[in-house]
Amino acid sequence: MSKRVTDELGNMEIDVISVSSSRHGSENSTYVHKVGNPPKKTLLTEIGCIVKETFFSDDPLRNFKDQPRSRKFVLGLQAVFPILEWGRHYSLSKFKGDFIAGLTIASLCIPQDIGYGRLAYLLPQYGLYSSFVPPLIYAFMGSSRDIAIGPVAVVSLLLGTLLQNEIDPSKNPLDYRRLAFTATFFAGVTQATLGFFRLGFLIDFLSHAAIVGFMAGAAVTIALQQLKGLLGVKKFTKKTDIVSVMRSVFHAAHHGWNWQTILIGLSFLAFLLVAKYIGKKKKKLFWVPAIAPMISVVLSTFFVYITRADKHSVQIVKHIRKGINPPSVDEIFFSGEYLAKGFRIGVLAGSCSNWKNICFHEGLAVGWKQRNDSIRNNEYHQVDDILLRGHRVLFSLGSKLHGRMPYGVISLIDIEAMSLIWKIDKFDFVACMGAFFGVVFSSVEIGLLIAVSISFAKILLQVTRPRTAVLGKLPRTTVYRNIRQYPDAAKIPGTLIVRVDSAIYFSNSNYIKERILRWLMDEEEKLKENSQPRIQYLVVEMSPVTNIDTSGIHAMEELLRSLEKRDVKLVLANPGPVVFDKLHASKFHEMIGEDKIFLTVEDAVKTCAPKMDLEP
Amino acid sequence: MSKRVTDELGNMEIDVISVSSSRHGSENSTYVHKVGNPPKKTLLTEIGCIVKETFFSDDPLRNFKDQPRSRKFVLGLQAVFPILEWGRHYSLSKFKGDFIAGLTIASLCIPQDIGYGRLAYLLPQYGLYSSFVPPLIYAFMGSSRDIAIGPVAVVSLLLGTLLQNEIDPSKNPLDYRRLAFTATFFAGVTQATLGFFRLGFLIDFLSHAAIVGFMAGAAVTIALQQLKGLLGVKKFTKKTDIVSVMRSVFHAAHHGWNWQTILIGLSFLAFLLVAKYIGKKKKKLFWVPAIAPMISVVLSTFFVYITRADKHSVQIVKHIRKGINPPSVDEIFFSGEYLAKGFRIGVLAGSCSNWKNICFHEGLAVGWKQRNDSIRNNEYHQVDDILLRGHRVLFSLGSKLHGRMPYGVISLIDIEAMSLIWKIDKFDFVACMGAFFGVVFSSVEIGLLIAVSISFAKILLQVTRPRTAVLGKLPRTTVYRNIRQYPDAAKIPGTLIVRVDSAIYFSNSNYIKERILRWLMDEEEKLKENSQPRIQYLVVEMSPVTNIDTSGIHAMEELLRSLEKRDVKLVLANPGPVVFDKLHASKFHEMIGEDKIFLTVEDAVKTCAPKMDLEP
Repeated sequence: MSKRVTDELGNMEIDVISVSSSRHGSENSTYVHKVGNPPKKTLLTEIGCIVKETFFSDDPLRNFKDQPRSRKFVLGLQAVFPILEWGRHYSLSKFKGDFIAGLTIASLCIPQDIGYGRLAYLLPQYGLYSSFVPPLIYAFMGSSRDIAIGPVAVVSLLLGTLLQNEIDPSKNPLDYRRLAFTATFFAGVTQATLGFFRLGFLIDFLSHAAIVGFMAGAAVTIALQQLKGLLGVKKFTKKTDIVSVMRSVFHAAHHGWNWQTILIGLSFLAFLLVAKYIGKKKKKLFWVPAIAPMISVVLSTFFVYITRADKHSVQIVKHIRKGINPPSVDEIFFSGEYLAKGFRIGVLAGSCSNWKNICFHEGLAVGWKQRNDSIRNNEYHQVDDILLRGHRVLFSLGSKLHGRMPYGVISLIDIEAMSLIWKIDKFDFVACMGAFFGVVFSSVEIGLLIAVSISFAKILLQVTRPRTAVLGKLPRTTVYRNIRQYPDAAKIPGTLIVRVDSAIYFSNSNYIKERILRWLMDEEEKLKENSQPRIQYLVVEMSPVTNIDTSGIHAMEELLRSLEKRDVKLVLANPGPVVFDKLHASKFHEMIGEDKIFLTVEDAVKTCAPKMDLEP
Repeated sequence: MSKRVTDELGNMEIDVISVSSSRHGSENSTYVHKVGNPPKKTLLTEIGCIVKETFFSDDPLRNFKDQPRSRKFVLGLQAVFPILEWGRHYSLSKFKGDFIAGLTIASLCIPQDIGYGRLAYLLPQYGLYSSFVPPLIYAFMGSSRDIAIGPVAVVSLLLGTLLQNEIDPSKNPLDYRRLAFTATFFAGVTQATLGFFRLGFLIDFLSHAAIVGFMAGAAVTIALQQLKGLLGVKKFTKKTDIVSVMRSVFHAAHHGWNWQTILIGLSFLAFLLVAKYIGKKKKKLFWVPAIAPMISVVLSTFFVYITRADKHSVQIVKHIRKGINPPSVDEIFFSGEYLAKGFRIGVLAGSCSNWKNICFHEGLAVGWKQRNDSIRNNEYHQVDDILLRGHRVLFSLGSKLHGRMPYGVISLIDIEAMSLIWKIDKFDFVACMGAFFGVVFSSVEIGLLIAVSISFAKILLQVTRPRTAVLGKLPRTTVYRNIRQYPDAAKIPGTLIVRVDSAIYFSNSNYIKERILRWLMDEEEKLKENSQPRIQYLVVEMSPVTNIDTSGIHAMEELLRSLEKRDVKLVLANPGPVVFDKLHASKFHEMIGEDKIFLTVEDAVKTCAPKMDLEP
């Protein structure tokens, strides 16, 4: 049976019949919805659920469900070696396309990877090795057709910085190389471990904003490092911060820069910028910027060959060792002091490369904008991708002449993303700038540390200081909303409704208790000033409270005591299944009274408010 | 104008008129509630709010509001020196009560504090000093009338363990003492800093459960340490873990235990247990257990004096230096290697003593049970409190004879709290046991580390894996609830309603996106099996989503793309003020369409569901 209410304006309105377990209305006896108490899960199911949500939230075994055993085996094999699946549909025409794509990318990548090798202070062939072997393995075991596998600039830079803190590569190249092998070995072990134990979620702890800042800082750092080559500076600082680098550059200026190197560098920079401009203006000429870096490489090699510029102190890469990479297991430090150092560096570098977003940034598109565009159009811009590779080739050209130019990396500085971050979330912007300035003014590690710290601080702030809101009733509805957001939401006389917007855990239980009491005190003060009736009921809307722990229960008990002192009754609305369970386990529902727990705020108010008129 | 709906059972029901900003119904045009968009706060107000909630959530300046300047000054002075306030009402009769209380407590505390001094491997007088000076200062600057100020067992134990890791107190007592002074100095500085910068909230990061386990472990450790005195073992291990201690004890058994010490110890232990039993049985005789420890002290001293037991290898405290404590500033290490060590130990010990709950446990009541009782009755049981002090005196008695007994500390092992924790939260129980076994089988620091780590892990789990729920409509209401909690909640055909129970931040944005998609896939599979109409609308109930950051916005964009691929429309219900702001800042509301954001789930469903019948 429904209950009719006619409000003061004469509009007829019928209340929704959602009545709680309270004994307040016999007229509502037909459709009584109690606060739900679902059947208890056993401890084992509960643990299983947590493990599944934590480590297998992507539900990797979805395809295996309800399949016969033989099919499961095939699926499992295909999961490890996807080539077994797509290989069956591979055709000659596909191979033709792949062959051409491979040749194109190789011609672009070779000089680029030499450059990455040098960023890590290694001989050029190591950059080539690492861009050759991984894609080969990936062809058999990888699952994405669009990914670029190979060394990335930021990790190369990070590795180089960390390694040379331990060993000077110019003084002791052999040990340096061995330490590099050790570090990369452990980087691989780290990645495999993270993957095997499905700990990828640990990487979610770096916020997008921190990454944008970190990448921009790394771009500036890499660009600064190019100054060495571009200006032909001989004695260059080992540090990567802007102050040290600029001091080096100006110090070198006294001894005169190498004008030949500068001339070559600037000419090709101009050529590439013009090519890019043409490609942007005329969509049909998209192949101009795509082909420009290759032309630069050929031209510059030819130019150096005929003018013998290398005799005029223009540095060139010189001899690169032939052959595929020899096994280097015996060069890894498996004992001694460098084992620990290599391990530490490897874990750090390995975690960083696992940092999906860096890989994404570098591997597919340069900024969120491009990423968004591509997501928006639900396809990856092949042209953009080639353009990007074009940018990269600047590194290669650069490293070929050893006059790497600070141009390709500029696209890593994503001004647009930064301004969007500023608009959306100021705290994120602080993290972004912190990471950026940390990298630029100190070092890659410090920048990383700042990024992680600020990201963590944000999590902690979120966890310790959840939001609460005072609710009011929207006129002519049974909907209760935050009165700050909905100014026409009306407070109920004698009743204060507070919503807690978080699970109540030890980290915030005290705060939540105090904050609720503060809302009450503020409200009471206001009422006193206007000599309105005092608060008799405090309704806590628990809908968003997904969980509560022992500290939370104790905080609720303390809240109850404090309210009793003030002669205010505590009422709960809509506790979730877990919370309801725990309220029962701790017997809190007996302390507060079963009839004080309601299905909705409306129910709670309907029970509290009528009494208001009866009491003085 | 309201809209009448007659459901299939013929019950007349009128919908609540809470209509969103959508253009879906001209018949609902009278009372349109748009999703609220409150006036934007300036950046400064926003920062001010965050700072206030983070550091001043207790609103310390409440009393200062709207007061004239002179009154503010007086209030400020009284805030620093509360004696200025209560001192004015102090009377001779109050002094009489305080005097007797002081004498009583002093007679109980003196031997106890000697014991605490020895726990920290310091001369007995240092325990006395530290129980004398702090209460004196507290009398002027403290704000609570019920608090017990002085050394506490756990911190004494922690300090002793940490200090003797650095310096052996038996070999180098002078440096040991200086290091202790250095550490306690920095402990004080730490506490002052935490207080001044209002960083007390950092301490909230230890969960109640971890503390219960840690305290129980510390109790076992302290009890084990007493075995040395009780059994009169000469060569006792420096380690505190149970394995080392038991090995020491059994090793000593070969050389014969000191039977005189054991006899004295056990006799008084029996005496105290009997006294406690009497007090428990007959409420009128509550003074028997309260006075028993004092009697023990007097008796044992007398006994040792007449039998000259100290000549029969019963160890006694011997001479305690007279006078108040001399200044020890010049003994603090302000340079050298011990400065850093003292600083580290001090910060750790200082943070621990700041750990409110330890102080609370030790200072006022022994377990949550007593605490709860006292809170329940809204007063502190004076008798219980004296009993507690009685327990403590066992330490003192113990230290007097140097045969401290493992009895008083047993009450620190709160079995009842542990079983409650097990019932309420299994994860909490793991933290509790981890801390307990860490302390018992390893050391106090390791236990502390485990407690902090597990507490943190819990926070991280909470932050990275928030809950989500599929909602259904409760029959004959406009209320949507978790279908797991309310089995009679009905799903709306063609529509899936998912509630996200947390702010969407970088730490969980990917998970939330994937989880929502998984709900959708699961549902689609089920529908396929039963060949029911497919899902066309995904309603995300955003009420509990208090905030969203840039990563969260990107995740929502990706969700939108994935849904578009599956030809499912994304609909949002009730975004909060902050989220609404950010959706606008990022132009997400344009991507999804303004008409896809509703005030309530009911509104969203009313708009989506009718279309279901029209489409194929």
